[in-house]
Amino acid sequence: MNVNGKKLTSLWIENNSVMIIDQTKLPFLVSIKELKTKQDFLNAINRMEVRGAPLIGVTAAFGFAFALKKNATRKNIDEVYSQFFNTRPTAVNLKWAIDKIKDSIINLGQNQRFDVAFKKAEEIRDYDISSCLNIAQNGYKIIKKLYEKKKRKLNILTHCNAGWLATVDWGTALAPIFLAKKQKIPIHIWVDETRPRNQGALLTAWELENEQIPYTVIADNAGGHLMQNKKIDLCIVGSDRTAMNGDVCNKIGTYLKAISAFINNIPFYVALPSSTIDKTARSGNCIPIEERSSEELTHINVFNGSRYSYKQIYLNCKKVHNPAFDITPSKYVTQLITDKGNCRANLKSIQEVLKT
Amino acid sequence: MNVNGKKLTSLWIENNSVMIIDQTKLPFLVSIKELKTKQDFLNAINRMEVRGAPLIGVTAAFGFAFALKKNATRKNIDEVYSQFFNTRPTAVNLKWAIDKIKDSIINLGQNQRFDVAFKKAEEIRDYDISSCLNIAQNGYKIIKKLYEKKKRKLNILTHCNAGWLATVDWGTALAPIFLAKKQKIPIHIWVDETRPRNQGALLTAWELENEQIPYTVIADNAGGHLMQNKKIDLCIVGSDRTAMNGDVCNKIGTYLKAISAFINNIPFYVALPSSTIDKTARSGNCIPIEERSSEELTHINVFNGSRYSYKQIYLNCKKVHNPAFDITPSKYVTQLITDKGNCRANLKSIQEVLKT
Repeated sequence: MNVNGKKLTSLWIENNSVMIIDQTKLPFLVSIKELKTKQDFLNAINRMEVRGAPLIGVTAAFGFAFALKKNATRKNIDEVYSQFFNTRPTAVNLKWAIDKIKDSIINLGQNQRFDVAFKKAEEIRDYDISSCLNIAQNGYKIIKKLYEKKKRKLNILTHCNAGWLATVDWGTALAPIFLAKKQKIPIHIWVDETRPRNQGALLTAWELENEQIPYTVIADNAGGHLMQNKKIDLCIVGSDRTAMNGDVCNKIGTYLKAISAFINNIPFYVALPSSTIDKTARSGNCIPIEERSSEELTHINVFNGSRYSYKQIYLNCKKVHNPAFDITPSKYVTQLITDKGNCRANLKSIQEVLKT
Repeated sequence: MNVNGKKLTSLWIENNSVMIIDQTKLPFLVSIKELKTKQDFLNAINRMEVRGAPLIGVTAAFGFAFALKKNATRKNIDEVYSQFFNTRPTAVNLKWAIDKIKDSIINLGQNQRFDVAFKKAEEIRDYDISSCLNIAQNGYKIIKKLYEKKKRKLNILTHCNAGWLATVDWGTALAPIFLAKKQKIPIHIWVDETRPRNQGALLTAWELENEQIPYTVIADNAGGHLMQNKKIDLCIVGSDRTAMNGDVCNKIGTYLKAISAFINNIPFYVALPSSTIDKTARSGNCIPIEERSSEELTHINVFNGSRYSYKQIYLNCKKVHNPAFDITPSKYVTQLITDKGNCRANLKSIQEVLKT
């Protein structure tokens, strides 16, 4: 998508190297970084230089491949697999991607493994882009239908960042919004700040600004009030993992918006590639919720107009609890918007859509 | 209550002067400030050096009195009344307090007005303290009963700051918590950060720290997840204005916590002095919601261990919407805890409690 009028993706190959945008520096600085060693890839995921379930998967796929360049023994494959697996516990696309890499090379000779793994990682990246484009089209149908009914500007709430930065290109929750803008449907986006890491106010706002889509940032606390006052026509969020019964794991705070939408009769959509559906998870109870550092709440980047720096904002930095995700029970989800089509958030509909 | 082991209130008289703690500097600096001129009082309310509906009322009462010291004409009374009335639109205690001052002096000679108004303001301050102590006792009964049932440490969620800093002493939502601590009931408080002004992480955490009450700060987004996982036994919040039907206006985000508590079968209490009940408001629809500056979201105080400074955190400071309060419909409120007793959040029960 656009960055100051120039096309960029969140991860690409340049002269056989993997290049990323270091998202911890956005929107203050567009810093492009080459990932060379296995440790570079692990750090990029752990430190959230790349984040968003689909992009974590793509990054881990390339990291896995690169880690086999000099040592493609079975022992190293198992060790590297486990290292990537343990970076982030919630996003299931990570496991999906490294499983694909492992399956593609496990029966090959050692000297073929790096090349095949790298090619498979490129396929995973391509698949991510085409999935997101499908999500854009499937979600666009919903927006278009609602616009044809309401015949006025639509106000859409989103939480966190499920834009192109969370994938390779297009995004998940924002993909239908980008397409609606291109199709000239009048829209305005309410952007949840998304504490504690502020991905809404930092990343989603920046993506929308670059695409010239009207938006307004609000405190996470304000969404319910806006829904009560009919200022929101629909919600679209992403997912880090969705269970087979339709329970959706997504950024902490999603649940509060989903129940508020339910109570106020506002449709609540979840946009996700099918790789985010965990076929082994019967319900949301099976999904581990990552707990992250208290520093995410107690420290923040501040900006003086040209430079940014990392500062403390609260006195007591130890007395903090910071779960990164929550589970939205399927009953609060109007529909899932997937690359394979839209479906109800229940086992039967999900199984049907996965078959296609 | 305690500040570093010393007793303080949020507003007191010293040598006929009004002294406040400048709350915009807390918890980084305990800065005591004398309010001398009418403009000092107006600024203190507008800039939120004092905040919390009950304390706004007490401050306005003294400000009104002081403004009459040199000019107690009828014209000046009306002008000053209107200036204080227009500082903050939502907190109804403001009107309640300045009405009391006005009523007490309007039929007196000009030379008596300042003395009587000042004495009335002192009465309003005393009444606030005794109201909050009553709230402490009435809320304590609820906590004690739940403790006797559960026979284990109670986890209590609160939103924003409704502690002694929001009143003169004791507080509203925190008053029963302070008393429970004194009565040795084992409690732990979940403190909502409370974006955008962070009164939970800054003020409530500081009050609890000073009273040595165990607490944990969470992002506002995390409360629903904790409720789903049975980590919260009850919620207690304050109110800036409550309608006669029991609809509660309180800090933005209260509504999201109330509906989540309702869905998860967790009792949700609102603690308030009877002066916060607006007898002219039939329902929450009658309550104006203050919109505040976008800077509250886009800027923040940072702390380097000895000094704090005000910094920008987001790029685009204009595309922000910042409603300061929301309305929680009465059906989500388990009970009101008032100085005159506890009651259901409905017209009949509120009318009964107001009679006592």
